[in-house]
Amino acid sequence: MSTLQRIGLVGGGVIGAGWAARFLLNGHDVVVFDPDPEIERKLGEVLANARRANAKLMSGLALPEGKLTIAGSIEEAVSDADFVQESLPEREDLKQQLLARMDAATRPEVVIASSTSGLLPSRLQRDMAHPERFVVGHPFNPVYLLPLVEICGGEKTARETKLAAAALYEQIGMRPLRVRKEIDGFIADRLLEAQWREALWLVHDGVATTEEIDDAIRFGAGLRWSFMGNFMIYRVAGGEAGMRHFLAQFGPALKLPWTKLVAPELSDELIDRVAEQSDDQAAGTSIRDLERLRDDCLVSVLGGLRARDYGAGAVVKAHEQRIIDQLAERDAATETSPDGLLVLYRGRVLPEWIDYNGHMTEGRYLQCFAEASDTLLRRIGVDGAYVAGGRSYFTVETHIMHAAEAKLDAPLEVRTQILRGGKKRLHVFHQLFGPDDLLLASAEQMLLHVDIKAQRAVAAEGDVRKALAALAEAHADLPRPKAVGRHVGADRD
Amino acid sequence: MSTLQRIGLVGGGVIGAGWAARFLLNGHDVVVFDPDPEIERKLGEVLANARRANAKLMSGLALPEGKLTIAGSIEEAVSDADFVQESLPEREDLKQQLLARMDAATRPEVVIASSTSGLLPSRLQRDMAHPERFVVGHPFNPVYLLPLVEICGGEKTARETKLAAAALYEQIGMRPLRVRKEIDGFIADRLLEAQWREALWLVHDGVATTEEIDDAIRFGAGLRWSFMGNFMIYRVAGGEAGMRHFLAQFGPALKLPWTKLVAPELSDELIDRVAEQSDDQAAGTSIRDLERLRDDCLVSVLGGLRARDYGAGAVVKAHEQRIIDQLAERDAATETSPDGLLVLYRGRVLPEWIDYNGHMTEGRYLQCFAEASDTLLRRIGVDGAYVAGGRSYFTVETHIMHAAEAKLDAPLEVRTQILRGGKKRLHVFHQLFGPDDLLLASAEQMLLHVDIKAQRAVAAEGDVRKALAALAEAHADLPRPKAVGRHVGADRD
Repeated sequence: MSTLQRIGLVGGGVIGAGWAARFLLNGHDVVVFDPDPEIERKLGEVLANARRANAKLMSGLALPEGKLTIAGSIEEAVSDADFVQESLPEREDLKQQLLARMDAATRPEVVIASSTSGLLPSRLQRDMAHPERFVVGHPFNPVYLLPLVEICGGEKTARETKLAAAALYEQIGMRPLRVRKEIDGFIADRLLEAQWREALWLVHDGVATTEEIDDAIRFGAGLRWSFMGNFMIYRVAGGEAGMRHFLAQFGPALKLPWTKLVAPELSDELIDRVAEQSDDQAAGTSIRDLERLRDDCLVSVLGGLRARDYGAGAVVKAHEQRIIDQLAERDAATETSPDGLLVLYRGRVLPEWIDYNGHMTEGRYLQCFAEASDTLLRRIGVDGAYVAGGRSYFTVETHIMHAAEAKLDAPLEVRTQILRGGKKRLHVFHQLFGPDDLLLASAEQMLLHVDIKAQRAVAAEGDVRKALAALAEAHADLPRPKAVGRHVGADRD
Repeated sequence: MSTLQRIGLVGGGVIGAGWAARFLLNGHDVVVFDPDPEIERKLGEVLANARRANAKLMSGLALPEGKLTIAGSIEEAVSDADFVQESLPEREDLKQQLLARMDAATRPEVVIASSTSGLLPSRLQRDMAHPERFVVGHPFNPVYLLPLVEICGGEKTARETKLAAAALYEQIGMRPLRVRKEIDGFIADRLLEAQWREALWLVHDGVATTEEIDDAIRFGAGLRWSFMGNFMIYRVAGGEAGMRHFLAQFGPALKLPWTKLVAPELSDELIDRVAEQSDDQAAGTSIRDLERLRDDCLVSVLGGLRARDYGAGAVVKAHEQRIIDQLAERDAATETSPDGLLVLYRGRVLPEWIDYNGHMTEGRYLQCFAEASDTLLRRIGVDGAYVAGGRSYFTVETHIMHAAEAKLDAPLEVRTQILRGGKKRLHVFHQLFGPDDLLLASAEQMLLHVDIKAQRAVAAEGDVRKALAALAEAHADLPRPKAVGRHVGADRD
């Protein structure tokens, strides 16, 4: 499941760069080709946004990032790839021609997927020598946050190709949706396009501005659509009588002239109107700021739904578990500092961690220490399965001593000494270091092994206890830090 | 602003009952008429759902509920009302006839609003003697959670009527959207209907099931629509080149056959298919359970967006502030707890504060305590100007003891005892309480008054020292908490 691959990406625009970020953040190496001379800067900007959003969404849980390479040609991007994703402009002739080139330059068993939002796979695969390994994998922007990917094969696509693509997408935290019938626009873009065409009519006819149309969605039905589609929403609205009742009640509205049902002409005048109203709506906010606002809102919405373990929240939760398990595998051999301590956390001071005093705010110190404790727990075998089995460690007590300030972007590292690893108690001493090995703070923590449901301390289970005992044994001869056992306000040396 | 009114509701179905709940929970008295013999039970069920959702969303902040009365006739429901809201079935002739009756039974200055989702106000007001006080106020289900309400007047509607309706809706936490041109379906339902008709086609043609269509929205674009509409989303996707670039890039897709662009015939066969697929999708979950799931997800999404103060989250935040102000007016909210401690922080466990153990993650405990310390500092005069002058308090040491877990949406309150307020040192003891006064954790903290530039402790300045001394003096006789002076791992009593 966690086999890391080399991904060849052809096209590095908004969608291609989003793919690059999602693959890299999930540990895969990525080789991108795009003729844009600014490709490196543009990829870097999307990747920075993605890192920021991912750190918030996954509360710091992160696999080591894959390696990003910029290729000089399509062939260079795909020739060594284990999986190819094409995100070129939506022109059928261009895609046909370049897909044939990718096909010729890649081992025949490698899957080649297209990000097209609506072109037919049977037509796109037409000129390929190995059309059976071609499939559509249509993602949504921002690719690094939205889980949906539509999978649609053409007439010549092999079943194994669809399965392989779905498996890889799932492994990077996405939610594949199999499209059974090959139609223009697949499923999602048919729905989006119907709404979009109607929205353009409303602007065209002067019924509403772009801002009013957006408000008509985001303050109403759009809130519901973040976790339930129309059919489920209407089923619930229909009440005890169910879906039949709902259709009987609102069926007649289908006869009413409530949509224009044709696409408006995209005249210069309509383009001007949309562009001007859109400028008014943005009120001078830059695209970069809007991107961050969008990502922050998505993180909050996904975080909220994760707590419900429903819809996209369930996808995020499952992916978080997948990452925890992968980290656990990797943590089996983590580093030790020169003085024999465990290195359990590495990060950087993010902009939103800075308080009105201009340095890292208090709560973030404990966040770093808590993440170090989490890493330690995974390392001794307290992984997703263990917690699902009803056992975990809870922190019962923490004593923090501040030594120096941490500024924006400062690198952070937590090194930890095991003071005691008993049947129930885990007593640790963390130190947080900044640039040039400057000690920023220390935290002495007592954790207790608990039965989650019974809410009481119980002895840790066999393998966990053994793993912990081994770590504690390795630290038995380390000197005891002076801060241990200290109470608040005691004289400092 | 907080003048409480008597609201007459005609129609107590899903929408009417939702209005009843929203008005009652915001302190207004409500009189409902509906010929359904089970109206009392049905209203009670919706109200129970609404109370539950509102308590979670508003973290227990609640105005005293208004009084609910069931009326025996339309006239009884509206005759003493200060505002009337009609939520009858969507039949123009029925609404015309009964609106005329309401008109005849109500003082002429009372606004009469209709919940119609798409019928034209000019036609609905046709038979009223006072058509100027008629307006459409179209809400969305569930009315007690979704903020959007479309306001649309007919030819004879007075401007004052629209303003009065908008003001009342805002006061109960909604987001009025003024519809400038009177068209069938207003704004929102034109967009919804276009998507709904296309969705029915996809089922009709066997392209996708109801569940697949729902998934195509809720794992993708639906997540974005909870805070930004298509125009803003596409502007961001267009990148630095803006909306014009986006239209140029995706304009050609408007020519593609990506929608059916007509409404399908609602044949018995299509009804059967939709109803059966909807049953499969619900997999036996009852409507009551689905309603609660929907409401919980909405609460999480709204709660997440409130943290961003954006979109519907900004509406909720402003409404929360309105309720806090109203409550403060009401009982001149004390800042001291019954046992004489300072109440320095009130909040709620947000979705992104939950960790893999399912409860509030460690770092957030210290965040709450740190915010309480910040409030304390502001109260003794350590404000922006003071910090800008080069002085501040820095936390040097913290000892946290955990006592219980905090779950999603739990209300939080920090109460604080000043142990010592000296020249340089500020020694405090915070306690964090959850629901039902449950102690979640305590934190003993030592703060030091510093010269920020010189990075050393200096004596606090005159007014700050005096303010702090006064607070410390008021706490001088409070018992010393047992946890003070404790070191990590000491035996608990």
